[in-house]
Amino acid sequence: MRIKGMKMVVLCMTLALIGAMQAQAERTWPQCGANKPKYVFLFIGDGMASPQIHATEAFLAATQEDDAVAGGIKAEKLTMSKFPVQGMQMSYANNRFITGSAAAGTALACGKKTNIGVIAMDPDATQPYTTLAEAAKANGMKVGIVSSVSIDHATPAVFYSHTDSRNNYEDIGAQLLDSDFDYYAGGGFRVNKYKSAEYANLDNDQRYALVEQKATANGFTFANTRDEFDALRRRSGRVIAINPYLDGSNAMPYALNRMAADGAGQDYEGSISLAEFTRKGIKLLKNRQGFFMMVEGGKIDWAAHANDARAAIQDVIAFDEAIQEAVEFAKRHPRETLIVVTGDHECGGMTLGFAGTGYETYYEKIAAQTLAYDDFGIKVLAPYAGGQSAMPSDIDTNLWQIILTHFGMDGAGLTADEGDDLTEYETTLLEDAYDQAFQGGNQNTVQENKELYGYYNPLVVTLTHLLNRKSGLSWTSYSHTAVPVPVMAMGPGAKRFDGYYDNTAVARKLARAMGVRLDR
Amino acid sequence: MRIKGMKMVVLCMTLALIGAMQAQAERTWPQCGANKPKYVFLFIGDGMASPQIHATEAFLAATQEDDAVAGGIKAEKLTMSKFPVQGMQMSYANNRFITGSAAAGTALACGKKTNIGVIAMDPDATQPYTTLAEAAKANGMKVGIVSSVSIDHATPAVFYSHTDSRNNYEDIGAQLLDSDFDYYAGGGFRVNKYKSAEYANLDNDQRYALVEQKATANGFTFANTRDEFDALRRRSGRVIAINPYLDGSNAMPYALNRMAADGAGQDYEGSISLAEFTRKGIKLLKNRQGFFMMVEGGKIDWAAHANDARAAIQDVIAFDEAIQEAVEFAKRHPRETLIVVTGDHECGGMTLGFAGTGYETYYEKIAAQTLAYDDFGIKVLAPYAGGQSAMPSDIDTNLWQIILTHFGMDGAGLTADEGDDLTEYETTLLEDAYDQAFQGGNQNTVQENKELYGYYNPLVVTLTHLLNRKSGLSWTSYSHTAVPVPVMAMGPGAKRFDGYYDNTAVARKLARAMGVRLDR
Repeated sequence: MRIKGMKMVVLCMTLALIGAMQAQAERTWPQCGANKPKYVFLFIGDGMASPQIHATEAFLAATQEDDAVAGGIKAEKLTMSKFPVQGMQMSYANNRFITGSAAAGTALACGKKTNIGVIAMDPDATQPYTTLAEAAKANGMKVGIVSSVSIDHATPAVFYSHTDSRNNYEDIGAQLLDSDFDYYAGGGFRVNKYKSAEYANLDNDQRYALVEQKATANGFTFANTRDEFDALRRRSGRVIAINPYLDGSNAMPYALNRMAADGAGQDYEGSISLAEFTRKGIKLLKNRQGFFMMVEGGKIDWAAHANDARAAIQDVIAFDEAIQEAVEFAKRHPRETLIVVTGDHECGGMTLGFAGTGYETYYEKIAAQTLAYDDFGIKVLAPYAGGQSAMPSDIDTNLWQIILTHFGMDGAGLTADEGDDLTEYETTLLEDAYDQAFQGGNQNTVQENKELYGYYNPLVVTLTHLLNRKSGLSWTSYSHTAVPVPVMAMGPGAKRFDGYYDNTAVARKLARAMGVRLDR
Repeated sequence: MRIKGMKMVVLCMTLALIGAMQAQAERTWPQCGANKPKYVFLFIGDGMASPQIHATEAFLAATQEDDAVAGGIKAEKLTMSKFPVQGMQMSYANNRFITGSAAAGTALACGKKTNIGVIAMDPDATQPYTTLAEAAKANGMKVGIVSSVSIDHATPAVFYSHTDSRNNYEDIGAQLLDSDFDYYAGGGFRVNKYKSAEYANLDNDQRYALVEQKATANGFTFANTRDEFDALRRRSGRVIAINPYLDGSNAMPYALNRMAADGAGQDYEGSISLAEFTRKGIKLLKNRQGFFMMVEGGKIDWAAHANDARAAIQDVIAFDEAIQEAVEFAKRHPRETLIVVTGDHECGGMTLGFAGTGYETYYEKIAAQTLAYDDFGIKVLAPYAGGQSAMPSDIDTNLWQIILTHFGMDGAGLTADEGDDLTEYETTLLEDAYDQAFQGGNQNTVQENKELYGYYNPLVVTLTHLLNRKSGLSWTSYSHTAVPVPVMAMGPGAKRFDGYYDNTAVARKLARAMGVRLDR
């Protein structure tokens, strides 16, 4: 080996001295002296693969206001897409080709496959796996875990807990509170799922109070208002920071819903973005021993499950803005900062094309949607719908107007110029969905309705389907799919992420780059 | 720059001497002394992106006979997936987000964007672009162009011709015959599209004879039988080698159809595979000045247009076998051989998941299909169908038996144990398709039928849709889509193909690696 090394040195010297291939050499040589990175970021876009990334890039190009689009820009690159290294990973679980977030997260966190639903343990859930975060902590680094969904959800959980099921929220939460990590941030705790005696007789607010009490007792500073978040400093010590606004699953609100609120100036005021949580994490975690921070864009997945492209796109943008925070930090510490971005799996079977639109795309149409499917259902449709019995037998003018306002599609000739006119076929699809949602059922078979609506509100999912398809974007599933997932990397050690490999290799490559051991 | 280079040398020396990070260094250092490759392969899978590749890998794992599947192998890597470098490219055309093969091929061949349909010229089709193949030839390398579709089709054409439309088959063919390239192989010429006076009064056989005559006059050895192909030697000089079997578009038959024939021992006897055309090309082109060979897997795209996963998968395998020929060559010439594999665009909006199957996949079911959609229509369905007037009003037992035999799906309780039983909903979809295909129409709107069937035989495309969906694989379009396309590379210069870039960068990177100029 040494002789080979010497030969290489001669080669390198010769090349350097004659000055040949300098541009290429500059790109590849820093690897020769690659440092062990001191600051390591792992960004996981849940349910994010190439289609979600590129749909966002196409949407950004289609909706930008200057004339550059006409000049040929068809896709505006996200920060993650500019990373110098682009690899690919296969996401399958130990016991299923199409993975889930627990098994995929375990692979990314621990470098080993496991079964669907298992959190950082072997397939039989008898042995815990060592996680990258634990290994980093054992090596003296500080550790941060950030997610836009609840902080006890599968993807964050695989970094700090070990349990046989992702549904053991109380167990996962207890392990979080007992951990020695330094920064947990984003969504909250799923206390409504807690089952033990000490929580059983409490309402959710009381449960939260008990969690906060335990967190404080364990040495965490607990912040769940904007003021408390803003007040966090390095002297705050170990921190649990929860967004002041959480949805029904204790996740942060969709970025799209926050945008809509910004426009109206009412809801979500003071809501904290994933980028803010990331920036704060950098500030709190930076120290001589370095840090490891995992940041999950968790609601990309949820929007994709619901086949809501507009919501997914805005959460990809929010995720990319969080990545940008890490990149800004890396610019100040280029030789010490490794950033790896990947997804855990694709979700929804998103594709950038549709049979009905053929070779054409109209992604600017997607911009007409004002709210994510959930807030549309809760804030717009539910108050209109009132009770099922009160609903008219067909979609009435009032509802057509709501659809026009929130999706830009006109099914009743409401306007001469505005909105995208729905065809007879599309209107029929909406009427069928309306019947299924509000009139006790439609004429379809159970199988057809399952394929048409999944487990979502039939009217809402049909609205996003139609808007997406008319834009030239479509979906095939309400579940994850098995297409490979890109891995993007920059900084010292990034070159390791070249190639096409198993998702378990991501954690192993990270461990080697960091010089830590995943020995269990 | 020199000072920086010296510093790097010191770093490299230090590392080499202390023997640290040897594994990593070995992977990256060969780049320091990267040779200009002498033998360059560009493989283009038409309509092939990650979904097509990974579907094939999942199919191979699901259908292998040993127990390894149960042991956890969910995807068996293709040769191309084992390449050390994996990049990504964006495929969009100058004037459309979803590209076509002419514009995408022009980008891959010339390093510049153009408009849809234009062959190796600027968007206005006023200036020809220099192609990689021309630049290689001008540098003394031999050039080979191989395709499984007709050799005058858009993707091969962009390497040797310049014209304002891919439909100018006669012009493209004439430029091929006038070119100084060394090896054209695979599919034939679309002589049925020739319009000029000298061809107008000839039948297709006579037209072919005239093409052969011109080719011979221009110094080509013309081979279109198995014997002639086998007899090709280096002394044959410049060669045009056409498969003895061509489909209605003068393309080679689907690999799946050839397999079926091998089983029956009847049709396609002596048909030449893409791998054989590639191996022969290597033999004929190898010389001191090196060669550039482009090999297109063209029918992956056509199968994907038709939403026929089984046919697409087998053509991906055939394409990968051709790549394997180049890899075997590269093993003998590792420091001199650069192999780049990419697609021009995705096709069909293929995804590895479906709403109806959720998280489960059953890719072994796809194996039940015996023939590609075209031969099924021509060889099985057409003789049965006879004339439209002769068809029964509903799918009869005879046709259900045909469907069971060729797709493994049972819609009439034909067997107790064999075949995958169709549900009422699925049977209705087939009956509707049957009515549209053979009974003068069904009850659907024009828009619904367009989305259901595209421009394909409604019954045949519904059969592949149902079989694919029941397997957990689905499609959203009959056209191309805009998802990014992987780029896989090995050999000297391969590292250039890291990252996420425009499709035009593929040609520019190749040109720089080869030391040739794309100066027009």
